[in-house]
Order: sequence, then structure tokens, then C-alpha cells
Amino acid sequence: MIRPFEDADWAQVWPFFEQIVRAGDTYTYRTDLTSDQAREVWVQAPPGRTVVFTEGSQLLGTAEMCPNRDGPGAHVANASFMVDPAAGGRGTGRALVEFTIEQCRTDGYRALQFNAVAASNRHAVRLYERLGFAIVGTVPGAFHHPTEGYVGLHVMHLPLT
Amino acid sequence: MIRPFEDADWAQVWPFFEQIVRAGDTYTYRTDLTSDQAREVWVQAPPGRTVVFTEGSQLLGTAEMCPNRDGPGAHVANASFMVDPAAGGRGTGRALVEFTIEQCRTDGYRALQFNAVAASNRHAVRLYERLGFAIVGTVPGAFHHPTEGYVGLHVMHLPLT
Repeated sequence: MIRPFEDADWAQVWPFFEQIVRAGDTYTYRTDLTSDQAREVWVQAPPGRTVVFTEGSQLLGTAEMCPNRDGPGAHVANASFMVDPAAGGRGTGRALVEFTIEQCRTDGYRALQFNAVAASNRHAVRLYERLGFAIVGTVPGAFHHPTEGYVGLHVMHLPLT
Repeated sequence: MIRPFEDADWAQVWPFFEQIVRAGDTYTYRTDLTSDQAREVWVQAPPGRTVVFTEGSQLLGTAEMCPNRDGPGAHVANASFMVDPAAGGRGTGRALVEFTIEQCRTDGYRALQFNAVAASNRHAVRLYERLGFAIVGTVPGAFHHPTEGYVGLHVMHLPLT
């Protein structure tokens, strides 16, 4: 089930969010991000949205979406996803991306854009491509992966209209 | 002369900053941005920098630069420029971009990236290309220009190492 984020959810989000951020191998967040800072960037005020994927009482993943830019750029959405590594391979990520695509379409965005998908995050790149996203361009060496070194950051894009 | 921004400079920056933002034809800022909001986004705290171009007592333009992303993306700089339209054609923009390139190199960034250069802003695109930037990709229709309609947003990139 995917539903809007509620305040009480953070206690279940932060443990895997922290694990993902500390690893520093997918997102361009500070690897020493605190729980409060993470909550600030993740929990969106309207017109943005934050949602969670649950299975019974377990929270397995979360997504946030909002305008990618302001003013003359606000018709394009941006989104990010976090899935509990312990819950991998169960379709949680795919369900969250599919939900986000439909929600952004319903919300009237003309496209969905990811600004910084690490080329080393092959699983995510493949999933996004399967769901229709195209790599618009790759900024060379823009992501410093802890073991692979400097890898590209893809800008990925899906038209919604 | 290009020097660090000082608090008293805002009185000379805001009039042309406001004119540029209200026009909505170059930057993805809210077109109803207030002076306080603009100052908040423009004036960078360290390690970011904000500088101004002056000619005698006149302030003709300004630039800001900072890490484009956090954590594993913080080795790439981002920068933005605003030149008083009344001072156009006098090399102010070019001087600010050249200064920024050198400053970012000195500050140890490995590259300089612009995330959203409106394809309709031909003057800026040409200037950046002359100074060595390449268009890494163009997000189709991501900028809603007031007269040209939906145009692309270029991601532009210059290696500094």
C-alpha cells in the first residue's frame, strides 16, 4: 500500500534512510546528514508530496515529489526514492516509481525529471529506463562513488503529456 | 573591478535583479520573488561566494557560486550571473563568468556546471560555449518562456582539472 507520509512514519523511515545516506553511494546528500536535516529535505509541503510504501505494519520505502524548479520551470516535477535495503527485490522501488509517475501526471506536471542519478546505480538506471525515462545527458565525473571513484550523474526525463 | 559582495550592495543589485526575475525569460525563479527571498538565494555563505562587478560607484552585475550538490557531488560547482540590462554589451557578463571559472578552479572544484540555461537565452549559451562550456544535455520543454513557449533547458559543463 502506498499512502501519504504521516509524522509518525519518520521513526520507520530514518533507520534505512540513514543507512543509505551514510553509504554515500547513491545520493548527493551529505553523508553526515542528521535525522532533522533529512526530514527537512524529504518531507514536502504542498504542492510537493511525500508518500510511503507499507506492508502491514512495516514501512519498506518512501518517495518524495515536488516541482523541480520554480517559476518558468515549475511544470516539471522532480522525485526521489528510498527503499529499505532489507526489503530489496520485492518490487517496492518499482511500485513507488510507478505511483509517482501517475501522481505527477494527475497533479498536472508536463514531465518528470531526475537531476542526478549516479551512473554506478545501475539498478535504478535500469528501472527508470524500463518505466520510460530517457537519459537526457550525463555530467561526467560529477559523483564521487566510495569505491568506483568519479562516475557520471545522469539527468533522466519522462514526458507526462 | 570584481570584489566580494557586501551587505550595502543589495540596494544596487535588487533593481536589476528584480527586472530580470519579473521578466521570467531567463531564470527559473518565481517571477513574484521578493527582495528578501532573492537575497536569501543569491548571497552565499562559505564555501559559496557572491561577487559584484563595479565601475566607479556603479554596480553593473553580480555572480554567485557554490557546490552544485552536497556530499559525493560537492566537488562540482554551480554558478549564476545577473547583469544590469542597462549595462549590456560592455563585457560585464563575460568578465563575471571568467572570474567565476578562475575562482572555482582556485577553490578546488573539479568542474563547473549550470543546471538550467534556457535554450532561448542565446546570448548566454553562446558566451558559455565560447568560454569552453559544453552542452551535456537539454531537457526538452523544461522552461516556459513568456513569448517563445516551452523551450529546452541546457545542462552545461566545464571541466576545471
